[in-house]
Amino acid sequence: MRILAAIDSFKGSMTSEEANDIVKKTLKHHDVICFPVADGGEGTVAAFCHVEQGEFITKPMIDVNGKESTGTWGYINKTKTAIIEVAEGAGIIHARKDLFHPRYHTSYGVGEQIIQALDYGAQTIILGLGGSATVDAGMGMMIALGVTFLNHDGEVISALPVDLSQVAKIDTSGLDSRVKDVSWLVASDVTNPLTGPDGATYIFGPQKGYLSSELAEKEQAMIHFSDVVASTLNKSCRDMPGAGAAGGIGFSCYSFFNATFQSGLTLLAERGCLKALINKADLVITGEGSFDSQSLSGKVPIGISRLAKEVGTPVVLFAGKIEEGLTSLPEENILVTLPIVNEPMKLEMAMSDGQRLLKEAVERFSHVLGLGYTLYSKRS
Amino acid sequence: MRILAAIDSFKGSMTSEEANDIVKKTLKHHDVICFPVADGGEGTVAAFCHVEQGEFITKPMIDVNGKESTGTWGYINKTKTAIIEVAEGAGIIHARKDLFHPRYHTSYGVGEQIIQALDYGAQTIILGLGGSATVDAGMGMMIALGVTFLNHDGEVISALPVDLSQVAKIDTSGLDSRVKDVSWLVASDVTNPLTGPDGATYIFGPQKGYLSSELAEKEQAMIHFSDVVASTLNKSCRDMPGAGAAGGIGFSCYSFFNATFQSGLTLLAERGCLKALINKADLVITGEGSFDSQSLSGKVPIGISRLAKEVGTPVVLFAGKIEEGLTSLPEENILVTLPIVNEPMKLEMAMSDGQRLLKEAVERFSHVLGLGYTLYSKRS
Repeated sequence: MRILAAIDSFKGSMTSEEANDIVKKTLKHHDVICFPVADGGEGTVAAFCHVEQGEFITKPMIDVNGKESTGTWGYINKTKTAIIEVAEGAGIIHARKDLFHPRYHTSYGVGEQIIQALDYGAQTIILGLGGSATVDAGMGMMIALGVTFLNHDGEVISALPVDLSQVAKIDTSGLDSRVKDVSWLVASDVTNPLTGPDGATYIFGPQKGYLSSELAEKEQAMIHFSDVVASTLNKSCRDMPGAGAAGGIGFSCYSFFNATFQSGLTLLAERGCLKALINKADLVITGEGSFDSQSLSGKVPIGISRLAKEVGTPVVLFAGKIEEGLTSLPEENILVTLPIVNEPMKLEMAMSDGQRLLKEAVERFSHVLGLGYTLYSKRS
Repeated sequence: MRILAAIDSFKGSMTSEEANDIVKKTLKHHDVICFPVADGGEGTVAAFCHVEQGEFITKPMIDVNGKESTGTWGYINKTKTAIIEVAEGAGIIHARKDLFHPRYHTSYGVGEQIIQALDYGAQTIILGLGGSATVDAGMGMMIALGVTFLNHDGEVISALPVDLSQVAKIDTSGLDSRVKDVSWLVASDVTNPLTGPDGATYIFGPQKGYLSSELAEKEQAMIHFSDVVASTLNKSCRDMPGAGAAGGIGFSCYSFFNATFQSGLTLLAERGCLKALINKADLVITGEGSFDSQSLSGKVPIGISRLAKEVGTPVVLFAGKIEEGLTSLPEENILVTLPIVNEPMKLEMAMSDGQRLLKEAVERFSHVLGLGYTLYSKRS
């Protein structure tokens, strides 16, 4: 039997690649193809590199805290495509916990990785937005790329500490000229605008360290910054869907790169020919950490089950936690949902033991699948 | 497809009958036969009445606390068989919590139920031992049946409070004469002797209210009592397997009734022709609250899977909690074990929500079973 494993990460427990790999190893008598999925956040580089046989490039860069470090991005030589994820160059997983505030976090390293990709000869750059610690509207990234931001006294503003309210003038003459010759694709599952009640400050600011008491002031700074960018470039992008992604890096991608935005899965699916792979499979196995009624408007498992529906391949879904009543969703082409827990336990236990639990759940699934054939064929 | 549902109770969550009924209702497109199982404790009367089409008889009796109450036993008119469980006449579920000590708990009501059964014309009495609050070695039961226990001053000892050390002489002349004409079957999954370190006092006494400081004294009283019974009847039964069951009611069953002991499942299986039912089924569904390596030496699910092995019917097992690694036990004819929990949760939650969780787990099983047939038959 040919099975396509395309499981989302179980956040905090296992990556998409790890989950797929468990399916492949457990169902070793079947032909299991793994398709890692990503939403633009952590794992995006790995997913594209897996799907398009890319290589990992690790180079020095300034990290999210402004310190010298190294970072990894992906390169697909065949198509001269670079994949960069902001979770690496501006990621919350790399942010210092003792100075946890957007003021101390810059997207500068993302810009450095872009230059590295341009130096490699990239003609397409895929930028995954998700998992950032920054709310600098991509200013750090643009500084690395050669844009100069000046204050009211005409002084050059540095990438850190972040203070968007100081920006009075922008000089784009130093912007790396190769930027305009590249095809820019942004992978983002976030469609929030830059500003307003659904914007980067109000929605994502608090989880990145903003106090509720400073949100109004930070929102004003963000509006001010976007006004200056808009008047400099003569285009206003702050209300574009996804402009608020990654603390506003989305806004800079629209403004300076003229990027095309797509969901992480859509982009991966297109570039990795996911539909064709699903079409060749007898069964698709997907999954995610928690599956509930919210998941129905989500991107990954439902996106996959709908693709599979178009070509008539059945889908089963594994999850750490499944909402009451959702045992089967035939209208979404999910034949059955299978929880991985094997006994009453705490969430932390389920997460730390996720790989073992998924393995055992897949074993059980395989046994029942075989039993179904034995029993029904005896009767018919 | 013909399915036999024979699930043990999920203790504290649902009875065997409730669990089987969920399987029957959930797999409504199949021909599901329900076979309730019991280990001699609570549910034994219901299980035999279900399997042998018996009726429930409810009559007044003295309860475990010595108070007037009513109790239910079962009668199978066709075979003139009565089923009595000590969980009803001497049961821990009926014991007063404010006077929770074996001194205040008698098996007298069990004896009354035996007389009621004899009045009905019972020629076989099945006595289920399990779930008792008493440690009176069946003295209360025997008093109800007409045996007189006398102290050192020749005074008649009453059933309560229980003090076995006072018994100096036993007069069996008043014992209901019908007792000796009846065929006695004891259903017990406990094989402990009456006395000694594995006996009724040391093993079961503490959970019934004995303080550890009084165990030695109570053990001496038990030895003394059994010596008086042995010398009166001229036979010693205290080391017989199961003599220690139900606080020593097993001992009186050996001594006064000459009863035959069997495990609850074995007796039910024989009388209910379980093997023939399994033979006619395509699949057996069993289960219990918690399945672990201890279950392998247990009675119900493993007993059923071994019976099924003899006739070649596959078995699947549902449980609230399944030990790591036990996804399948082909050597025990258990093709797959299926946990019913659908997310990380507390034990209390899993128990209070057990019926819903089992229903959803059976739904999932059914979906995968059907999928297995679809997928494999497409390939072959």
